[in-house]
Amino acid sequence: MTEKLKREKMMRNYMSQLALGLKPYTPGEQPKDKTYIKLNTNENPYPPSEIVKTAIYGAMDKLRLYPDPEATELRETISDYFNRQDKDGSARLTAENVFVGNGSDEVLAFAFPAFFTARSIVFPNVTYSFYPVYANLFQTQYREIPLREDFSIKVEDYTSLSQKVSDLSGILLSNPNAPTGRSLTRDEIAQIVASNPDSVVVIDEAYIDFGGQSVVDLVPLYDNLLVVQTLSKSRSLAGLRVGFAIGSETLIQALNRVKNSFNSYTIDRLAMEGAKAAILDETHFDATRNSIILTRERVSARLADLDFNVLPSKANFLFITHKTKPASALFSGLRKKGVLVRYFDKPLIDNFLRVTIGTDEEMDVFLKCMEELIIESGNS
Amino acid sequence: MTEKLKREKMMRNYMSQLALGLKPYTPGEQPKDKTYIKLNTNENPYPPSEIVKTAIYGAMDKLRLYPDPEATELRETISDYFNRQDKDGSARLTAENVFVGNGSDEVLAFAFPAFFTARSIVFPNVTYSFYPVYANLFQTQYREIPLREDFSIKVEDYTSLSQKVSDLSGILLSNPNAPTGRSLTRDEIAQIVASNPDSVVVIDEAYIDFGGQSVVDLVPLYDNLLVVQTLSKSRSLAGLRVGFAIGSETLIQALNRVKNSFNSYTIDRLAMEGAKAAILDETHFDATRNSIILTRERVSARLADLDFNVLPSKANFLFITHKTKPASALFSGLRKKGVLVRYFDKPLIDNFLRVTIGTDEEMDVFLKCMEELIIESGNS
Repeated sequence: MTEKLKREKMMRNYMSQLALGLKPYTPGEQPKDKTYIKLNTNENPYPPSEIVKTAIYGAMDKLRLYPDPEATELRETISDYFNRQDKDGSARLTAENVFVGNGSDEVLAFAFPAFFTARSIVFPNVTYSFYPVYANLFQTQYREIPLREDFSIKVEDYTSLSQKVSDLSGILLSNPNAPTGRSLTRDEIAQIVASNPDSVVVIDEAYIDFGGQSVVDLVPLYDNLLVVQTLSKSRSLAGLRVGFAIGSETLIQALNRVKNSFNSYTIDRLAMEGAKAAILDETHFDATRNSIILTRERVSARLADLDFNVLPSKANFLFITHKTKPASALFSGLRKKGVLVRYFDKPLIDNFLRVTIGTDEEMDVFLKCMEELIIESGNS
Repeated sequence: MTEKLKREKMMRNYMSQLALGLKPYTPGEQPKDKTYIKLNTNENPYPPSEIVKTAIYGAMDKLRLYPDPEATELRETISDYFNRQDKDGSARLTAENVFVGNGSDEVLAFAFPAFFTARSIVFPNVTYSFYPVYANLFQTQYREIPLREDFSIKVEDYTSLSQKVSDLSGILLSNPNAPTGRSLTRDEIAQIVASNPDSVVVIDEAYIDFGGQSVVDLVPLYDNLLVVQTLSKSRSLAGLRVGFAIGSETLIQALNRVKNSFNSYTIDRLAMEGAKAAILDETHFDATRNSIILTRERVSARLADLDFNVLPSKANFLFITHKTKPASALFSGLRKKGVLVRYFDKPLIDNFLRVTIGTDEEMDVFLKCMEELIIESGNS
């Protein structure tokens, strides 16, 4: 038997049928060969708050001890933060409305066995490509609803959905949507949540802090609403792995049942303290996200001048397609020039590039490279 | 409708059938009310290597960037470590033989969908109580094989098991076993692994560094052997959440398929660097684990003098039962005196206490309290 045949036999022997059938998610490249201007994984170009370092440093003395499995202080910090934002005082959240996880990816993963297993969920046909991957792992049926031609979500497609999908257990929406950057308003989401009272509606707000309307303040009004956020983007902490969900106590309890059947301690001591500090430093948070919004608008206008169709974005990235130059060629051209962006070789979006908003200096290099590519290929 | 009825209706509405049926694992108490001598969660009483702090400090500058999703450097550090231990050079491991996760709990959790889903697994009736919890979450059938009366594992019960269990997919053994502390030899485990070539044998070596015989060096010989270890115990890093598995490339690939369908980045930048440093500092590792072994033997002898039956332990804890005093009463008595140990209110072991080995000073307080309790209750 050849080595290859032997390995295939072993795989069939030892891997479960489930594992053999999985099609894992591929994260954006983390190149090791050289230094790129990295606009491919929606990281924040600005460092986290300085007080994050101090907090982490302070947590180093207790590393021999397990972290708090319930992450109570972090959950309180998060509920307090949202209560402070709510000017009219309607949102009264407590730590019991908060679930924390190892990045919002883990929070989303736990949502599947908590709410959806064996029944159907619905999400748009262009959205975060991890959703179908979770669905396969947790053997959940899913239906994809097409976006409009302009990549916007048609709200009416999602209202009163249980009349159209008999075994509906949930709806997943990224807002702003990934990788398009387009967003729904708070009122549009409220319509979807209110008209599906027997289904769990998960709003993935990974990119909400860059100009979108959060629906966290709707949580006290709707028991079926789960809002998921992350510290990876707007708090500049992709390297720390902390995400969270806000929802009714029932939904949070379901997530806890799953988490406590999987891993008692998902957030380490350093991440716990770093996350708390990041949420407390609202000045740093506002300054950096406002910089990113300003840069985004400037780059957006300049790309339109260069004959790009730029989807209206409320995220820390732009989703763009050029009127004449193929996205795949622009992707390779940028890579050669030392600029990494994200290209998805998938139906409907294979002529688009997703470009993370970096610093002004990084975006100037990006724009210059893009101009060169368009002129070069224009002349060839 | 009362609040309680309303909540129960909501739970049935929104929680999946699976989540409703889960019986989550309960970790040992992390008390917040006062300072205890904490001998209840098998934490290491000694701090981690000083170079861990330096490594973590050095990683703080890149927190805005995602960690390496493949954790390549950490996996190389681990395979290199085991190759150095192997004096006769038979174990030639590479990073492709290593999987890393958020604590060995997460590694074990991933093993279920990777290898076992929908087929049967087998483990002892007294062992790490997380195993049946994972099995419920991932809907895996399990059979429990009784230990001998002296709480030892009967090797013959596990050899050629597929002749007895028709749909066998795996065997899970803690070595040393938890919470008994009793261990199997390397040769006994080799017999089990060799006689079950079509099943995955998972050896959970969370406590192996305190005197047991590891079977990591058997990995190159058996494609069906997965050895799981953690940095929480012998490397004093319970607060950092890093565990790993060593196995054939096929087994590691199966774990990666599951992990990459769940969460691309399970280990944050700080944990990654801290873990590497801890594995490199073998001097600190040997000094602290040897101290714990010496303390264990001393405490063990003293407890025998106090009329305890002390199971022979190769772990950083002792499993003890007193000839006349009930374990539950001793547990409460110790708690009142400020010493926390672990008591499992479960069949077969409900007259035992699991006592983590602390520093010599901590164990002297523990022994003094125990003496008082035995004399007090003897007089009452």
